[in-house]
Amino acid sequence: MALNIKHLLGLQNVSKNDIQLILDTATTFREILDRPIKKVPTLKGTTIVNLFYENSTRTRLSFELAEKRLSADTINFTTSNSSATKGETFKDTVRNIEAMKIDMIVVRHQSAGVPLYLTKISNASIVNAGDGRHEHPTQALLDMYSIREKLGKLAGLKVCIVGDIAHSRVALSNIFGLITMGAEVSVCAPPTMFPKNIEQFGVKVYHDINKAVAENDVLNVLRIQLERDAGTTIPSLREYRKYFGITSDVIEKYNKDVLILHPGPINRGIELSSEVADGPYQIILDQVTNGVAIRMAVLYLLGTNN
Amino acid sequence: MALNIKHLLGLQNVSKNDIQLILDTATTFREILDRPIKKVPTLKGTTIVNLFYENSTRTRLSFELAEKRLSADTINFTTSNSSATKGETFKDTVRNIEAMKIDMIVVRHQSAGVPLYLTKISNASIVNAGDGRHEHPTQALLDMYSIREKLGKLAGLKVCIVGDIAHSRVALSNIFGLITMGAEVSVCAPPTMFPKNIEQFGVKVYHDINKAVAENDVLNVLRIQLERDAGTTIPSLREYRKYFGITSDVIEKYNKDVLILHPGPINRGIELSSEVADGPYQIILDQVTNGVAIRMAVLYLLGTNN
Amino acid sequence: MALNIKHLLGLQNVSKNDIQLILDTATTFREILDRPIKKVPTLKGTTIVNLFYENSTRTRLSFELAEKRLSADTINFTTSNSSATKGETFKDTVRNIEAMKIDMIVVRHQSAGVPLYLTKISNASIVNAGDGRHEHPTQALLDMYSIREKLGKLAGLKVCIVGDIAHSRVALSNIFGLITMGAEVSVCAPPTMFPKNIEQFGVKVYHDINKAVAENDVLNVLRIQLERDAGTTIPSLREYRKYFGITSDVIEKYNKDVLILHPGPINRGIELSSEVADGPYQIILDQVTNGVAIRMAVLYLLGTNN
Repeated sequence: MALNIKHLLGLQNVSKNDIQLILDTATTFREILDRPIKKVPTLKGTTIVNLFYENSTRTRLSFELAEKRLSADTINFTTSNSSATKGETFKDTVRNIEAMKIDMIVVRHQSAGVPLYLTKISNASIVNAGDGRHEHPTQALLDMYSIREKLGKLAGLKVCIVGDIAHSRVALSNIFGLITMGAEVSVCAPPTMFPKNIEQFGVKVYHDINKAVAENDVLNVLRIQLERDAGTTIPSLREYRKYFGITSDVIEKYNKDVLILHPGPINRGIELSSEVADGPYQIILDQVTNGVAIRMAVLYLLGTNN
Repeated sequence: MALNIKHLLGLQNVSKNDIQLILDTATTFREILDRPIKKVPTLKGTTIVNLFYENSTRTRLSFELAEKRLSADTINFTTSNSSATKGETFKDTVRNIEAMKIDMIVVRHQSAGVPLYLTKISNASIVNAGDGRHEHPTQALLDMYSIREKLGKLAGLKVCIVGDIAHSRVALSNIFGLITMGAEVSVCAPPTMFPKNIEQFGVKVYHDINKAVAENDVLNVLRIQLERDAGTTIPSLREYRKYFGITSDVIEKYNKDVLILHPGPINRGIELSSEVADGPYQIILDQVTNGVAIRMAVLYLLGTNN
Repeated sequence: MALNIKHLLGLQNVSKNDIQLILDTATTFREILDRPIKKVPTLKGTTIVNLFYENSTRTRLSFELAEKRLSADTINFTTSNSSATKGETFKDTVRNIEAMKIDMIVVRHQSAGVPLYLTKISNASIVNAGDGRHEHPTQALLDMYSIREKLGKLAGLKVCIVGDIAHSRVALSNIFGLITMGAEVSVCAPPTMFPKNIEQFGVKVYHDINKAVAENDVLNVLRIQLERDAGTTIPSLREYRKYFGITSDVIEKYNKDVLILHPGPINRGIELSSEVADGPYQIILDQVTNGVAIRMAVLYLLGTNN
């Protein structure tokens, strides 16, 4: 079986079959991660460039480990070592890197649309590792994988995304992917954290976190951007915590069967209490492990697709 | 066949036979770059240190890819992570790195002569990746390779180097290499951009770009150093562009058969118009691809020479 | 044979048998470093994270080369690219990295005790690459290896550590290791550079460098921290050099058979004269080479211990 896509730019237009294939392939790679020798020769001789214009520890590490475990050669290209300072255009930089005969580009950029633009100027397979407020498809795939691993299915599940939906590429990719896979998706946040046209995505809207906990099987809790949000989209962190922070009390009162996901890094004591972040309802570190497997699956499927 | 040199410090004293061997070996590696598995086990177990005291994206990436595709182990050592800040001498730093049993050092440094100095204090093979205003031999080799690939020969060709000759290690390496290979070399620039003793190199001098275009088979157009040149070696970028910038108009008027090279990064609209930079006369991205093959050839030939 | 330790946090509680096993294993790896192909497949498929919260060129390079020559996959994680800036706790950062299924963590940190703390929150094998003023066990192991290589034994040798004992993790690890191996250990420094409780370690104390040279087989000379010590622990660098700097004169007058070690980087003309640093009594570059072999031995023994 092969993917119908050449690039992974987002989940908006990815078919159920393709998502299914990625999740099923990841299951195989997930098993490899528990072996003493966590490595397969699948992409030996393939060159992958990690083009990170936005700082990111965990996503870059996760991709880099996935690439190495597939035996690919990897090159890291970050803003700090770029020719951008020499006045070269982004297009020229990318075409130069590509001329060195690389096969895939994993790109993270602060501007939405950069991965799509790369597909126009390059022949390499492009994997979006997060572009502005647009999409972060591998995060959504690992979230879906982790839910499926824990609850056995996606179709029919009620999944609520909690937090700053308006600024979150994680939220958007989850909404697209989960709806495609047959889940019922809702969102929960203060009104200032919704995009204006949230209803068009076909999601239910909660303003009351207690109700969201009570009525859903899964909560995917987003990280509050400490630097940005306090005083702008929310009056204060204290107020956000009071009305939208998830604590053991809330879970035990409203829904002891709820499953908690968080993409990390966690702000302990804000969107999640420390008790919840370390507690029995969450699968946060499973998400991290599964992330490597998902990225191996995506790189493998795209890398052997030509 | 083996090289007669142990190090590649510059092209000034490299024989025609050695240059020929590097170019011919690069042809083999160039073919490998078009395969799905772009990797050979040639330098497995060899350790190469990339010692970059001067920032450089494309040259470092090109060497790093060449090394990985030869299956060498690579270590990157840049100024930002150096012990220089701890008051250690350059010599002690290098001898320490060498004591870790490394085989080759690829060095870029702002001071001319550093690669030569390394040969005195180290037993490793030294490859100059650019030293001050002295030489940048792999750039000249990839330029010669690209010309030969396109025009079938070097001997007898008329090649003009356009731009800031006085500050350019690319110019100097090209002059030495091209003359050795039997090309007729000329230079074209404003008078302030010539070294004082330019005639001693046996090159013809142009001050009129139109004439240089008309009378040469190849133009190797150097990058203007935006940060440095405007207001010093040239009155203004606008004036440089007016008198020395290469546009489609100039090419079409004076020589439609001319071949345009540029080492990158390009200042679009200054030394080359965007139309020329993307147009049919230039082979700029071929140069980038060939650069990886040339570096593979140099590292392979030096690395297996002992 | 296998180590009785799962982690290498320091030498304080490591048995003679374990130290012996590490030194003997390093002998094998030291031979590999002289081969053309300096690589073994021993740790293929093992993932090692270099978690460096404190800048270090030579230690990081030495570990990285050791890891690559064992065919491990390596990931570098330094403060500059960390999530620490996003407000994540150190514990969450480490647990996240570990969730990506890594096998070993080589850690350097400005705070004593961080490696021990890692053993509590992670299942990976932890190797201490220097923690605050606590220990730097691989440095002491390579020092002992180098002494044994040169003098044939450790038991019964008189070894004096010269310099800032109070702030030195190198001193402490050497004291523990050498005493375990049966050497007689002493220290020599100005009074301000001793820890208050120096006698409890069972070491002899010298205040006169001439006497220390005269009465010992080996001097392990520490680096003076230029940035920190002048004007605080010592009146001036000039005064330190005068009373504690080791010169050829001192050696030739008091003990021509003494062996000089230094962990580097050297302050030439301060703790060692340049003549001594390059002279026949020292084995400073051997220490660097042996350091790679020691780290290969430690990583191999811990990595195959499970």
